[in-house]
Amino acid sequence: MSIGESVKRVDAYEKVTGRAKYTDDLCPRNALIAKVLHSTIANGWVKKLEIDEALKVKGVVKIVTCFDVPNYPFPTAGHPWSTDPKHQDVADRLLLNQRVRYYGDDIAAVIAEDEVAATKALSLIEVTYEELPPILDPKEVLASDTQPLHTAYPNNILAHTNYEVGNYKEAAKDTDLIWFEDEYATQIVQHCHIEPPVSFAYEENHRITVVSSTQIPHIMRRVISQALGIPFGKIRVIKPYIGGGFGNKQDVLYEPLNAFLCTQVGGKCVKLEISREETFHCTRTRHSISFKVKSGVRKDGRIVCRSMEAISNQGAYASHGHAIVANAVTGFRHIYQAEKAVKADAYTVFTNLPAGGAMRGYGIPQLAFASEAQMDDIAYKLNLDPIEIRKQNMMKLGYKDPFLGITCHSSGLEECIEKGRHYIDWDNKLKAYQNQTGPIRRGVGMAIFSYKTGVYPISLETASCRMILNQDGSIQIQLGATEIGQGADTVFSQMAADTIGLTLDRINIVSQQDTDITPFDTGAYASRQTYVSGMAVKETATLFKEKVIAYASYFLKLPSSNLDIKHNAIVHRTTNEVLIGMDALALEAFYSLDYCQHITAEKTIQCKNNTLSFGACFVEIEVDMPLAKIKVLDIINVHDSGVLINPQLAAAQVHGGMSMGLGYGLSEQLLFDAKGKPLNPNLLDYKLPTSMDTPDLMTDFVETVDPSGPYGNKSLGEPPAIPVAPALRNALLHATGVAVNDIPLNPHILFEKFRAHGLI
Amino acid sequence: MSIGESVKRVDAYEKVTGRAKYTDDLCPRNALIAKVLHSTIANGWVKKLEIDEALKVKGVVKIVTCFDVPNYPFPTAGHPWSTDPKHQDVADRLLLNQRVRYYGDDIAAVIAEDEVAATKALSLIEVTYEELPPILDPKEVLASDTQPLHTAYPNNILAHTNYEVGNYKEAAKDTDLIWFEDEYATQIVQHCHIEPPVSFAYEENHRITVVSSTQIPHIMRRVISQALGIPFGKIRVIKPYIGGGFGNKQDVLYEPLNAFLCTQVGGKCVKLEISREETFHCTRTRHSISFKVKSGVRKDGRIVCRSMEAISNQGAYASHGHAIVANAVTGFRHIYQAEKAVKADAYTVFTNLPAGGAMRGYGIPQLAFASEAQMDDIAYKLNLDPIEIRKQNMMKLGYKDPFLGITCHSSGLEECIEKGRHYIDWDNKLKAYQNQTGPIRRGVGMAIFSYKTGVYPISLETASCRMILNQDGSIQIQLGATEIGQGADTVFSQMAADTIGLTLDRINIVSQQDTDITPFDTGAYASRQTYVSGMAVKETATLFKEKVIAYASYFLKLPSSNLDIKHNAIVHRTTNEVLIGMDALALEAFYSLDYCQHITAEKTIQCKNNTLSFGACFVEIEVDMPLAKIKVLDIINVHDSGVLINPQLAAAQVHGGMSMGLGYGLSEQLLFDAKGKPLNPNLLDYKLPTSMDTPDLMTDFVETVDPSGPYGNKSLGEPPAIPVAPALRNALLHATGVAVNDIPLNPHILFEKFRAHGLI
Repeated sequence: MSIGESVKRVDAYEKVTGRAKYTDDLCPRNALIAKVLHSTIANGWVKKLEIDEALKVKGVVKIVTCFDVPNYPFPTAGHPWSTDPKHQDVADRLLLNQRVRYYGDDIAAVIAEDEVAATKALSLIEVTYEELPPILDPKEVLASDTQPLHTAYPNNILAHTNYEVGNYKEAAKDTDLIWFEDEYATQIVQHCHIEPPVSFAYEENHRITVVSSTQIPHIMRRVISQALGIPFGKIRVIKPYIGGGFGNKQDVLYEPLNAFLCTQVGGKCVKLEISREETFHCTRTRHSISFKVKSGVRKDGRIVCRSMEAISNQGAYASHGHAIVANAVTGFRHIYQAEKAVKADAYTVFTNLPAGGAMRGYGIPQLAFASEAQMDDIAYKLNLDPIEIRKQNMMKLGYKDPFLGITCHSSGLEECIEKGRHYIDWDNKLKAYQNQTGPIRRGVGMAIFSYKTGVYPISLETASCRMILNQDGSIQIQLGATEIGQGADTVFSQMAADTIGLTLDRINIVSQQDTDITPFDTGAYASRQTYVSGMAVKETATLFKEKVIAYASYFLKLPSSNLDIKHNAIVHRTTNEVLIGMDALALEAFYSLDYCQHITAEKTIQCKNNTLSFGACFVEIEVDMPLAKIKVLDIINVHDSGVLINPQLAAAQVHGGMSMGLGYGLSEQLLFDAKGKPLNPNLLDYKLPTSMDTPDLMTDFVETVDPSGPYGNKSLGEPPAIPVAPALRNALLHATGVAVNDIPLNPHILFEKFRAHGLI
Repeated sequence: MSIGESVKRVDAYEKVTGRAKYTDDLCPRNALIAKVLHSTIANGWVKKLEIDEALKVKGVVKIVTCFDVPNYPFPTAGHPWSTDPKHQDVADRLLLNQRVRYYGDDIAAVIAEDEVAATKALSLIEVTYEELPPILDPKEVLASDTQPLHTAYPNNILAHTNYEVGNYKEAAKDTDLIWFEDEYATQIVQHCHIEPPVSFAYEENHRITVVSSTQIPHIMRRVISQALGIPFGKIRVIKPYIGGGFGNKQDVLYEPLNAFLCTQVGGKCVKLEISREETFHCTRTRHSISFKVKSGVRKDGRIVCRSMEAISNQGAYASHGHAIVANAVTGFRHIYQAEKAVKADAYTVFTNLPAGGAMRGYGIPQLAFASEAQMDDIAYKLNLDPIEIRKQNMMKLGYKDPFLGITCHSSGLEECIEKGRHYIDWDNKLKAYQNQTGPIRRGVGMAIFSYKTGVYPISLETASCRMILNQDGSIQIQLGATEIGQGADTVFSQMAADTIGLTLDRINIVSQQDTDITPFDTGAYASRQTYVSGMAVKETATLFKEKVIAYASYFLKLPSSNLDIKHNAIVHRTTNEVLIGMDALALEAFYSLDYCQHITAEKTIQCKNNTLSFGACFVEIEVDMPLAKIKVLDIINVHDSGVLINPQLAAAQVHGGMSMGLGYGLSEQLLFDAKGKPLNPNLLDYKLPTSMDTPDLMTDFVETVDPSGPYGNKSLGEPPAIPVAPALRNALLHATGVAVNDIPLNPHILFEKFRAHGLI
């Protein structure tokens, strides 16, 4: 068995030796270089672009401006297409925009023979703007009339939705209730994947090929087709290894522009690489969401009714639209079950800031900060153990969402909490750290979460897989599902090996996706791949095995029902006697003069199910009061993501997520001045934690067997990033008695809070 | 309908604009460069290689010699593998050889950072040989004891086979017979494809990828695996566009060495490009075959019995082995049916010359020269019309080969002859040019041929195809069959379009083969692809159509039996009413929330049939007697290759073959000195005809409908090269009365002949 083993990553050798090929490694030597001119105002119009001087720069081939692009508005969100227009993403941008909506909007592009010429030409383009006052605060939009950013949204509200479970008004009449009403806010952060967005495009046989660092090659094909107004089939997208995405590359960013630029130079290869600085504010960010949370609680901690108002700052373009804050308020009703009623309102509001998009957790890191913070505020005030109040209210096995039908098929949440509690020595430290004084104080904090697996029933969930037998009995597997650093190639290989009866060394996975030849899959997002695409692997492997056994049955003259595949050989199903090796059988299948078959298998699955994974984070911190600085002494994430296909890779995922959570909780924030200009769009001023800032990251798992997962597994990719920030915030409350309701918990904010509380 | 239309090549735009990517275009910038050191003796042993000075050259990374390579003998012929050892190709060479067998044998390789360093290092390697006398003449081998080149063949005869149909001895007793006994000989020529052999190899995830200009990617995978002693599945071969092959790239040439060199530098990318000069004598050549042909003929021209002895000069290594001369003597019994008996002996003999391999026609150009020359010799002596004697004896519809069972399912041979006769004004000129004198004389000549289609039943014939639906209703098709310039991609696309019911613009063919992902096919050789691989296209398209109709049936709620696909739409089978476009249906299939299917189809076919195609060449020449020079005034090839999928591409194939035939007949010859050293291995001294040497090439077709061909089609790729040389030779006989039995008919040879006949 390979599943459950911590086998080495199938791409480990390539990546460690630096030999793995990423997009830029594959770009032809003679590619032209494109660079984008960005708007230097946050709101207004480009009235004129003077390019004559720029065109004189030696090596400049062409300059394309916002006055030259086709009028095909297109969306950028990496969602499956829908044949129902009401479920299609908002198509609100052109390749280059005369109407600029944020500082950094794309207004022109230079194509040159090299980067120096392109950069020089950019600096020589003169832009005349008509400037409008920038709108930066969603609350201002909700409170007053603002000039619309998009004509289709006259009051700058992209969407407002609400729900109510039970009868909130009735429930709130209970006079025994103690009420908690608080506001929480999260900041704008950026994904900071190692490899910035990069692509190159060229024409071949009157079709456009785009090689890109993306999580979603098949979706990208569709979006480029929309943006250029040409059929899907005329676009080919190739995805090599990628240096991280975290959701930013679940948007289709600059590839449509890249494809268009290629058509403007007769189909020659054009490369468009986005710099780190551009990536910060010209791609996507995690939405800043502000929450009002109100809970009516009995004094024993039981929540009776609860409400939330969430306002999401969308920035200038819709991207994933309302989906992210909608996911946040859905998560609000999931993790804790109010006894009587829960309701929520969610707003997504356009502002003149960079567009928010998908980022690891899809609204749930924001939700968890607000919801988990208030749980500790309640516990603190009612003098309850934060663990006990959670256990009393949290989701139980069998829970079924009243709107979506999503069901809790398995839950190890209680065990996760117990493991964390034990590891951090919770009970002792909770007491020991009470009522501290002095400049250095310690605290423990924790937070929990639940997370869906894939996007059903909100969107389509489908995947296909193909397997190809080689002459030595080894196989190739091909999926549209993408390796984005998370180890997908490795776990898919393990799944295939086990299901067929081969050892892992007989599995070759084709890592690169190519929409011309790769089976369709919507891609890497929503922690869906091991669950949804894993089903395709399982069903394809089962079909493949049947086909191999059918050939063995012909060759061995034995009924299929007597045959099985084990350890790279056809064996007798009951006696396990080895009848013929897969290698010898494969040679026969390829070269038989009598009956020749090139055995392959392919299968589409459609997943009409979902399940919930869980976890908890426990931290111990030390607070330097005069410096207003938090030091993390110890941290552990404990996850229930069902059966682990590869425990070591699972732990690695958790490590990465925890690191993101630490940055989110303590230091990261993309800042803007009053005109919407980004203040720190670079890795020096944007405080991404380095290895020096990061404590040892401890991980543990509770392995449930989820009955809906193809191998008992469920989501893991995004969850680790969710509970860290609220656990830190709750530890700070424990250490100091100060409830900080905004992140990041950096010295700047802490200093103000401590001063306000008279602590310094 | 697209079949039968001269649609534009699908790769025309790419190739005309120079944008199509060939192997070298894809090679990574930082690839190391390898160069091969070749033996400068034709027979003997390498005793010592001194590489110290060479290693000192700046940029040299590694030098590998014949003392360093693994001891896995491997074959190079592009034949399908056989699980029966008796049908496997001769494995008679190592990657580098201490035992050198021809001038140019591979004895060492330098790997360097650039070509200059590699070349410099080559020149500094000192080799000490133990030299043996070279064996160059096969007749010498047959007549006396020679020292063996390969220990497995002590008398240097690779194979001797014979057959007899009827009772030759009995038949020869007929006293009415007039006997003709002549010797004919053909020269060594080289393919002279535009793109010399080139490949690059790199390791990826402990597997070796080789990108190569080859006709046979899937076979190459197997041969590299044999040569390196590692499993098939650890090798991946990618074939981009290639600049011609003509059979030379049906051998696996330097790719195994390239793959091995890559393993010697830790898996780094290594490029190995063979120069034009090396290509001439270090790759493959067309065998020189000498024939003795004896015919017993009645005075009306009817052949009663006939025998042939064919001796093939194999050169130093087996390559395709005995298969080529065996094919020649098989062709001997095919084209003309002796009334009573036919027999043949065929020898393949090792000598110290470059190895002969496959080249357009696979033994039949040589056979046709001998056989068609003698037909004219007989006609000349019996004063018969060369056309009439052929008609009397040639293969008729329904002929079935007594050994192979190959059957003449269709024949337009007689019509081909009539078309040629009419075009060249045969009857008038045959009379007009008799009994000429003076320095300038004219003549007409003709020759005919038959040619098999694929290799069944001698070898396995199998092919697979895959089709993939796109969201806009267009499709991709993928085959292991290779585009090598002949237009395969275009005709496969036409077949798919017609069979499914799509217009050609909806078909995208994946031109590049990649053994990891491309359906298996043995490759481009034996004029097999439209016939064998075409069957796979047809069956896959039929299956694909069934799957699309099944989905349409679900979606439209109509039985499949009511539905058809016509002109990119699902139509009612009887009324032809358009029910839904393929584009709309495809969108549904991809994105249905109810029933989602990513429609693809894949099918293996095994071809257990063969058929014969035919043709004739007619020429009119002018002979300048004092200059001993032939000028071609007019030439036409008329072919029966069944239904033409694309008449214009078919004509282009014929043009190319005729050009090769003209060079073969008039000027090309690779020459060697007495020690086996090539004298003219370059395009200056080897007289390949240029466009200036080439008259207008006329083509015509007789379209039979072959019942065994998937679309009524049969072989065309190789045949055009066959009949030109004998037609020229026969025209020379007609013009001058001189029977020249050796080619090329260059001034050097003609001068001697004319002098011997007292004509100059």
